[in-house]
Amino acid sequence: MITVLRLGHRHYRDQRLTTHVALTARALGAEKVILSGEKDDKILESVSDIASRWGGKFDIDYEKNYKKVIDNFKGKKVHLTMYGMPVQDKISEIRKEKDTDLLVIVGSEKVPGDIYHAVDYNISVANQPHSEVAALAIFLHEYFMGKELSKDFSGAKITLKPSERGKDFVSK
Amino acid sequence: MITVLRLGHRHYRDQRLTTHVALTARALGAEKVILSGEKDDKILESVSDIASRWGGKFDIDYEKNYKKVIDNFKGKKVHLTMYGMPVQDKISEIRKEKDTDLLVIVGSEKVPGDIYHAVDYNISVANQPHSEVAALAIFLHEYFMGKELSKDFSGAKITLKPSERGKDFVSK
Repeated sequence: MITVLRLGHRHYRDQRLTTHVALTARALGAEKVILSGEKDDKILESVSDIASRWGGKFDIDYEKNYKKVIDNFKGKKVHLTMYGMPVQDKISEIRKEKDTDLLVIVGSEKVPGDIYHAVDYNISVANQPHSEVAALAIFLHEYFMGKELSKDFSGAKITLKPSERGKDFVSK
Repeated sequence: MITVLRLGHRHYRDQRLTTHVALTARALGAEKVILSGEKDDKILESVSDIASRWGGKFDIDYEKNYKKVIDNFKGKKVHLTMYGMPVQDKISEIRKEKDTDLLVIVGSEKVPGDIYHAVDYNISVANQPHSEVAALAIFLHEYFMGKELSKDFSGAKITLKPSERGKDFVSK
């Protein structure tokens, strides 16, 4: 099971990016998101609402103390950062420990220095500046070897039928 | 060559997400980004500035009339949308036309209905709600088969050496 920890959320400024982090985590196979930084009930509610309508096992929570989350986590801890080791060189090593839970940590603009030492892996998706949403997406895609794209979201109230043109909803 | 067209940018509300779209496009192998919607010089400048420091061939421009961009584009046009056909089923067909330029279109919250009919492919990255940044990242990663992660950014004034812990800058 994969949990994603989003560090340093700030009201207003990060609202949409943090929402994208959470929805990307859910859509690509993570089962839990923990938000840290400023508490933001609006995001917790809107993401929970989407998760309950679109199905699958997924929780989102807030925890002010990110250190507690990292210290108490039983499993391997991966921090996604442009400074880290290339995902393509490390992913098979990380993937090998199949029965181990994974905590995937993504920052916002500034990440406290202690994070780099509190984790098992600092992993980069291209050593270039871009986006924690993109880095998370590619990490999960590599970790699950593309199988996350066919994940079944059980209990969905709404699903989509892939369509060449337009929108094909299936409501239940 | 891949160009990314970002539709419907809105000042303030989309500033950070549009920046992430542009930086993700650049970091993962696209060579041009065209922003549409509201004109936002701040994004054009900040992304150009990052591109010039971090190297590689990359342009970012604004074009109010997205239809003109789509109609005048010589090459294949791909619209990323949660309603589309699964990327994993279509990517080899898209990839096959190696010598053809590609226009990859990503929307913001509401995409005009005509887009679905103006393109060659409507492609989804999981038929689930998540993020245009994540969808773009995975599309490019699949298109380039992971080779974009080792892309050489020539002329960079700043580069990073991958690091197990901390930050290892190489300034030139």
